[in-house]
Amino acid sequence: MQLLAVVTIKVATTSLLQLPLTEETHTLVTTEYCTEMASKLVVSIDLKKKPWEQKYPLHNRWHPDIPPVAEAKEGELFRVEMMDFSGGAITKNPTADDVKYLDCSVVHNLTGPIRVVDKDGIPAKAGDLLAVEICNLGPLPGDEWGFTATHDRENGGSFLTDHFPYATKAIWYFEGIYAHSPQIPGVRFPGITHPGIIGTAPSKELLDIWNERERDVAENGVESLKLCEVLHSRPLANLPTTKSCLLGKIQKDNPEWEKIASEAARTIPGRENGGNCDIKNLSRGSKVYLPVFVEGANFSTGDMHFSQGDGEVSLCGAIEMSGFLELKCEIFRGGMKEYLTPMGPTPLHVNPIFEIGPVEPSFSEWLVFEGISVDERGKQHYLDATVAFKRAVLNAIDYISKFGYSKEQVYLLLSCIPCEGRISSIVDAPNACATLAIPTAIFDQDIRPKNNKVPTGPRLVRKPDVFKSTYDGNLPITKNPGATS
Amino acid sequence: MQLLAVVTIKVATTSLLQLPLTEETHTLVTTEYCTEMASKLVVSIDLKKKPWEQKYPLHNRWHPDIPPVAEAKEGELFRVEMMDFSGGAITKNPTADDVKYLDCSVVHNLTGPIRVVDKDGIPAKAGDLLAVEICNLGPLPGDEWGFTATHDRENGGSFLTDHFPYATKAIWYFEGIYAHSPQIPGVRFPGITHPGIIGTAPSKELLDIWNERERDVAENGVESLKLCEVLHSRPLANLPTTKSCLLGKIQKDNPEWEKIASEAARTIPGRENGGNCDIKNLSRGSKVYLPVFVEGANFSTGDMHFSQGDGEVSLCGAIEMSGFLELKCEIFRGGMKEYLTPMGPTPLHVNPIFEIGPVEPSFSEWLVFEGISVDERGKQHYLDATVAFKRAVLNAIDYISKFGYSKEQVYLLLSCIPCEGRISSIVDAPNACATLAIPTAIFDQDIRPKNNKVPTGPRLVRKPDVFKSTYDGNLPITKNPGATS
Amino acid sequence: MQLLAVVTIKVATTSLLQLPLTEETHTLVTTEYCTEMASKLVVSIDLKKKPWEQKYPLHNRWHPDIPPVAEAKEGELFRVEMMDFSGGAITKNPTADDVKYLDCSVVHNLTGPIRVVDKDGIPAKAGDLLAVEICNLGPLPGDEWGFTATHDRENGGSFLTDHFPYATKAIWYFEGIYAHSPQIPGVRFPGITHPGIIGTAPSKELLDIWNERERDVAENGVESLKLCEVLHSRPLANLPTTKSCLLGKIQKDNPEWEKIASEAARTIPGRENGGNCDIKNLSRGSKVYLPVFVEGANFSTGDMHFSQGDGEVSLCGAIEMSGFLELKCEIFRGGMKEYLTPMGPTPLHVNPIFEIGPVEPSFSEWLVFEGISVDERGKQHYLDATVAFKRAVLNAIDYISKFGYSKEQVYLLLSCIPCEGRISSIVDAPNACATLAIPTAIFDQDIRPKNNKVPTGPRLVRKPDVFKSTYDGNLPITKNPGATS
Amino acid sequence: MQLLAVVTIKVATTSLLQLPLTEETHTLVTTEYCTEMASKLVVSIDLKKKPWEQKYPLHNRWHPDIPPVAEAKEGELFRVEMMDFSGGAITKNPTADDVKYLDCSVVHNLTGPIRVVDKDGIPAKAGDLLAVEICNLGPLPGDEWGFTATHDRENGGSFLTDHFPYATKAIWYFEGIYAHSPQIPGVRFPGITHPGIIGTAPSKELLDIWNERERDVAENGVESLKLCEVLHSRPLANLPTTKSCLLGKIQKDNPEWEKIASEAARTIPGRENGGNCDIKNLSRGSKVYLPVFVEGANFSTGDMHFSQGDGEVSLCGAIEMSGFLELKCEIFRGGMKEYLTPMGPTPLHVNPIFEIGPVEPSFSEWLVFEGISVDERGKQHYLDATVAFKRAVLNAIDYISKFGYSKEQVYLLLSCIPCEGRISSIVDAPNACATLAIPTAIFDQDIRPKNNKVPTGPRLVRKPDVFKSTYDGNLPITKNPGATS
Repeated sequence: MQLLAVVTIKVATTSLLQLPLTEETHTLVTTEYCTEMASKLVVSIDLKKKPWEQKYPLHNRWHPDIPPVAEAKEGELFRVEMMDFSGGAITKNPTADDVKYLDCSVVHNLTGPIRVVDKDGIPAKAGDLLAVEICNLGPLPGDEWGFTATHDRENGGSFLTDHFPYATKAIWYFEGIYAHSPQIPGVRFPGITHPGIIGTAPSKELLDIWNERERDVAENGVESLKLCEVLHSRPLANLPTTKSCLLGKIQKDNPEWEKIASEAARTIPGRENGGNCDIKNLSRGSKVYLPVFVEGANFSTGDMHFSQGDGEVSLCGAIEMSGFLELKCEIFRGGMKEYLTPMGPTPLHVNPIFEIGPVEPSFSEWLVFEGISVDERGKQHYLDATVAFKRAVLNAIDYISKFGYSKEQVYLLLSCIPCEGRISSIVDAPNACATLAIPTAIFDQDIRPKNNKVPTGPRLVRKPDVFKSTYDGNLPITKNPGATS
Repeated sequence: MQLLAVVTIKVATTSLLQLPLTEETHTLVTTEYCTEMASKLVVSIDLKKKPWEQKYPLHNRWHPDIPPVAEAKEGELFRVEMMDFSGGAITKNPTADDVKYLDCSVVHNLTGPIRVVDKDGIPAKAGDLLAVEICNLGPLPGDEWGFTATHDRENGGSFLTDHFPYATKAIWYFEGIYAHSPQIPGVRFPGITHPGIIGTAPSKELLDIWNERERDVAENGVESLKLCEVLHSRPLANLPTTKSCLLGKIQKDNPEWEKIASEAARTIPGRENGGNCDIKNLSRGSKVYLPVFVEGANFSTGDMHFSQGDGEVSLCGAIEMSGFLELKCEIFRGGMKEYLTPMGPTPLHVNPIFEIGPVEPSFSEWLVFEGISVDERGKQHYLDATVAFKRAVLNAIDYISKFGYSKEQVYLLLSCIPCEGRISSIVDAPNACATLAIPTAIFDQDIRPKNNKVPTGPRLVRKPDVFKSTYDGNLPITKNPGATS
Repeated sequence: MQLLAVVTIKVATTSLLQLPLTEETHTLVTTEYCTEMASKLVVSIDLKKKPWEQKYPLHNRWHPDIPPVAEAKEGELFRVEMMDFSGGAITKNPTADDVKYLDCSVVHNLTGPIRVVDKDGIPAKAGDLLAVEICNLGPLPGDEWGFTATHDRENGGSFLTDHFPYATKAIWYFEGIYAHSPQIPGVRFPGITHPGIIGTAPSKELLDIWNERERDVAENGVESLKLCEVLHSRPLANLPTTKSCLLGKIQKDNPEWEKIASEAARTIPGRENGGNCDIKNLSRGSKVYLPVFVEGANFSTGDMHFSQGDGEVSLCGAIEMSGFLELKCEIFRGGMKEYLTPMGPTPLHVNPIFEIGPVEPSFSEWLVFEGISVDERGKQHYLDATVAFKRAVLNAIDYISKFGYSKEQVYLLLSCIPCEGRISSIVDAPNACATLAIPTAIFDQDIRPKNNKVPTGPRLVRKPDVFKSTYDGNLPITKNPGATS
Repeated sequence: MQLLAVVTIKVATTSLLQLPLTEETHTLVTTEYCTEMASKLVVSIDLKKKPWEQKYPLHNRWHPDIPPVAEAKEGELFRVEMMDFSGGAITKNPTADDVKYLDCSVVHNLTGPIRVVDKDGIPAKAGDLLAVEICNLGPLPGDEWGFTATHDRENGGSFLTDHFPYATKAIWYFEGIYAHSPQIPGVRFPGITHPGIIGTAPSKELLDIWNERERDVAENGVESLKLCEVLHSRPLANLPTTKSCLLGKIQKDNPEWEKIASEAARTIPGRENGGNCDIKNLSRGSKVYLPVFVEGANFSTGDMHFSQGDGEVSLCGAIEMSGFLELKCEIFRGGMKEYLTPMGPTPLHVNPIFEIGPVEPSFSEWLVFEGISVDERGKQHYLDATVAFKRAVLNAIDYISKFGYSKEQVYLLLSCIPCEGRISSIVDAPNACATLAIPTAIFDQDIRPKNNKVPTGPRLVRKPDVFKSTYDGNLPITKNPGATS
């Protein structure tokens, strides 16, 4: 790219070596006339069709053998569209039963894989680093709505599923940058829209590593559980299954389908390839540096969120929606070794790096709730950030519910407003200290503590509530012994 | 306060009830002439003296019977001064041995307790909420320096002590809002200065709860450890000890000293009373809402940090310094019940709430490192945010060390620059996903990945390094199998 | 609206009057189930057609008798589209001659008028206040480009037309939130996209006021000119003309056309109705409070800018583009009197109020250029902010041109990057002091002054330049006597 | 400085020339051990003494022959203290008469001159550029208060002196970063503290230029006035006078005193040397690049503001206070020619450049008032930003006074809160469009327009008001014909 040449001149002439600005160095500077760059649509979505009926069929597994559905050239702006994570299974209907009975093996319905080639048409190779810039993104025209929900405890649960074991749901409508929900009145906020999932295809070697270590947890994990020592949710890990498996262009009649489907990794956890990282600030102007494990990089994306809170505590917790991305790729040849040190037994144990853009809502006031690693029964845990964060979230729910909300409303809220979940202290044994910071401006009332201002009971009755199903399972429910109600 | 009356009028006249603006409502509005308010010094420090020689003797334990050293009236601006957390034990000397051999039972040397009374002189009572506003703060004149350090693994360790078991130290000098260190060249940044510790005195009942639950971890905790299943640090909890105990006005010759010292809680972990929360944004303009457990609230503060990263990963990890605070208190009668729901078996299981102020450095670009709950040996942990955050920090250290730094330099850096440690996803079983976001502007070079720009080896040799002691213990050191060096 | 009821309850119960939360007050709280709100397209644009061929024909004049082309209901989200200000006359062709010979009487090609009615269908009335919220906006799909230009001095000129009398042009391409121009290499920045024009239809009385006062300046203004006492540009005011006049639905064959066209106000200056205010931060999440002068409010909008600097110094100076707006209206009955105090001889001498949204790029570093009210010939002007600002802009152009740019490139840049033009001091007689603050992050090089780093001559040769026409007029050109080149 | 060497290595190795990292380049990297840097006090102030009684006597004029009172070495952090601009003449007494009768020839009482030398002791020279970094600043301990005032029209006036011809005053008290005033209840805000004045000594040649051009305005300026064509204030320019002249170390008995005093420039306007620029964001972490006209640079500073609004509209308009600065200087040899292009007839017609720091209060919501260049009588002015800004300020005063304030209270407020005065459009002939943006968070009530919420009259009666004197002069007062009261 010509730009590099220009930069080089600058660099050279400012060095201490005092390179004279000769004819030679001049020649490095060349014209930079760009050709016009309108975003090219490489993957479209038809919202009236099912995930497997799409022109560019979706996939809901990670596997090296899922063939690319489109190609992107380095430096070109292109557009991809995606369904919501459930592929249309969760609707605007006023019930949470679609969430309760959701077949979790269908998620996430990803767009891709996209094969990436350089300007000469040579594909990215294993060991390269793939930089993907998110130039623009948003909802699909005519589909400006989303939902936030908690799963039933028997069907995936959520972070506080031992307190809230039933499915709930709220619908959000978008007014440009703002979202509001009839089920959670009195709140309106600008979203930091982002894709929850972006990741490259794993190699077979990496896939095997995943399957082995996750199977170990699924099978032996119950004894190592520590969240109040109650079963957190079922299952502990989502292992490969051919049930509801979508492999993109590899259709069920393909002789390879059965084999791939039985070993392809589920998309629920984030892993070495990126995937479901749920980094809430990955919005316009951000960049992801992804490791490349297979030829062409074959990256996929999906699970668009209009807005999400750190932690995405209710699991189906951001404002889930369909949407589009405008992207631009760059290939750093050999960049994986250069930039990503493996942290584990093989060179594949790496993590992507992210660069956050300059455009976000600015909130100037935050109310911060704190939790320490002592659980609801009063038991001390050693530097456990998960327990500390759980307590911070519980504290926040209880506090905000004093302002006229049901606890279920606040639980969904904390999962989708742009709140920040921080690890404040991880060294002051035995207590980890985690915090949850909430921008106060999103409420239509002042939620800060005030002297002699708050009546003892709920005073702002907000009649509507989230949609809620029953919990019919038999796992024990955690009661906070200190709560009065 | 007259201001309330004014606010009330506003509220009343804007209501739908259309109260006419009569003589009566007028009379609610009265003059608000404030008397002049210069900050009153209530606790001074003489840096040439030891903690126990101070005019207002310091204390390093939490106990209801430590008597207040000063009184503050609601609404009045007052100033307190403090020593650094080590009480002067760690110096500018070019060695890390003062850290290695630090007697950890001396920390933290707190200023207080301060008894708080309302405008009529009636003290805060158990069950009230104490709002403390931090109006201003900074280093003590003539003492504009601080230090960042890691403890030896046999003496408290740090978050990555299994990787870095030895003591290290760097000295920072302040130029107004900026800090720079001769031991970590190429970095200069504005600090978000804050007190690491602010908390109220516990009641005897609360103290007993603390001691019991922490003793349980100290005695039985090893089997529940999960950080790579190696011993994290020694000890697991810091139990009461009369060694190096300072109880403020209760001197050693006091007949009660022995009893109080043997049951007073150590100040290392944050707990229900606030304490060592290390919330890095608790700077100018912030407010803390603390529960009151004893008459007068008896709050103490200390452990000033010029700057700290989320997590304070190196333990003695912020830029530690002496300093002053200008504070203003307000008592919310009965506010503890109103605002703080207990989260545990007793009404005392609460946590303070914090309000963050509007004045902070704004960084527009962040480089974000990610970790998932898979440890260095490749083992999968179930939704463990501590493991995920550890991996994110390790990733960041490795990456930044490519730009000419030793890993020890970066480790200290990440503990004191204003980096953000986030819980990005805590629900996508089995992987928790944590991130560490670093403001790129603090470096004098561009640390973002760039195509074809970084040589394969370290290219920017920065000769100075942190001060470093030897590790003479025998605990195993974690090796990252994937690292080349 | 139900929301109000809820707010009211909150207000009432927090008042000092201690209203009990009875059945009665309860009844004020009602459900708020919103119907789905997808943005409704009320005015579409076909870019392949001319302004007057559009389905909703455009207009380029302000007049009470231009009939509305569409209707919007209070509270409903709706979408309007617009052409660029020139109505397609300025193109991507690599020449500035389309700018040089632009018929200025065709601008601006506005979308509207939109008639606004309340929920009962009753239109806004003169004396109301119309709140228009900008929920979303952006380029039209497939038309992601724009241009920045300076007019020829004989054809409208620009702020520095006495220095730069010729027409110039640069083309910008959009990559999501970012813009870059082949003609101005080394710069890329996120836009704060906004409509340059939004305004209500004037009443006949207001229109007469405009025409009278502007005719006075056009006819007698030369002697009152003070910008270096040279003729600034021609003409001094753009008076009504039937030439190129577009009146929307009133076509040329309409018997009224001639009369309306001869008295309708030009759209170039901002006035009491809003209009061409060019407030660069009026982006997503902003609100405009417009006075209503005629039934239905009949507001129009146009002149979309991808990005603009304060002052829009090159006149056709923002990045001009076609685009869409998603809007929501609210009518404040009688709000004009309540909120807008007239500042002048009649109740019509008001100005709109604006509310800026929370979502903007955050830049943490600014380089600030200053100017005082002493002109290029050294003459002192009394508290003249225009002269001071002109000098600040000249200083900035000269400085930045040292980094490899032509002065014309910088001039166009300063007109479209998000720079801030401030009135720093307007009281320190005889000097007004104005500043121009430039975010340094938009350049690919560090433009701050550095010790021993900048060679004496331009060192970063950037070959491409803006498109440029000749100036064939005979007005004198201002030379800066102090400039070396 | 070693840092430069390090930077250079980085630069060199990233260039396209691919310099190998040899021994040679290695040797450029050397240790950077800094010596400890505590701020050195070079100029102290005793607030109990008069300006001329100080140990380092103050000066209130610009002249090359005022000798330095102290010396600062490049790279060293040093501290200077200053009196408030009036040198203690304006007090906390509850009257505005001290303002009304202030002898304006005593202002500003500057600290300095400070002579700057490089590390080898060689002084800055004419033609150099002096970079002054503001590392820290604040009020003097024990003197945490300030004032805002308007002058009487016969004694300097203010921006709106034709509307408000009398002297007024409000006292502000500081609580750390916050200020509040008993005279303007309901407002509390964080200050962006800064020195209003920082400038280098002029050469004799530059001084002559100033005196000549300002004398011309003072003598012939009335006919060129355009602010509503009424006399704006008296005098039009403040010419040299021996009255109340302070020349620092040159005492009255010095034979040169008379000559210097009669030609030394007044400090009221900002000029080529910097001086009274009143750039409200010049706070912690900012840098000023000043031209050097005499040996040693001899820079002076003063006029500390706790906070100021753009424009400083009430003249004595920021929150004026005494205070301290911690500074660090750097000399760019020959930098004036390199970086500052003269804009005028001589090489001395330059302006300083400023760099704004990253630490400021962040406000997320702004209410924006607009003005166009049509004056209160309805007369059209041609692109006059001063008239436009005047109208924006008048609009803001009128609007905010609806919320329970007197217009005088708002006028003082707009002069000292961190509001932004912007030149929005300076090209849309004949109207300049200026805006005044006000951060809404500083009020204890919501000042945004709301539907059906504001009664027709003032509803929030705030009894206290500013201190106010009578106007005894005979200049006509501008009435806004459209105002109802």
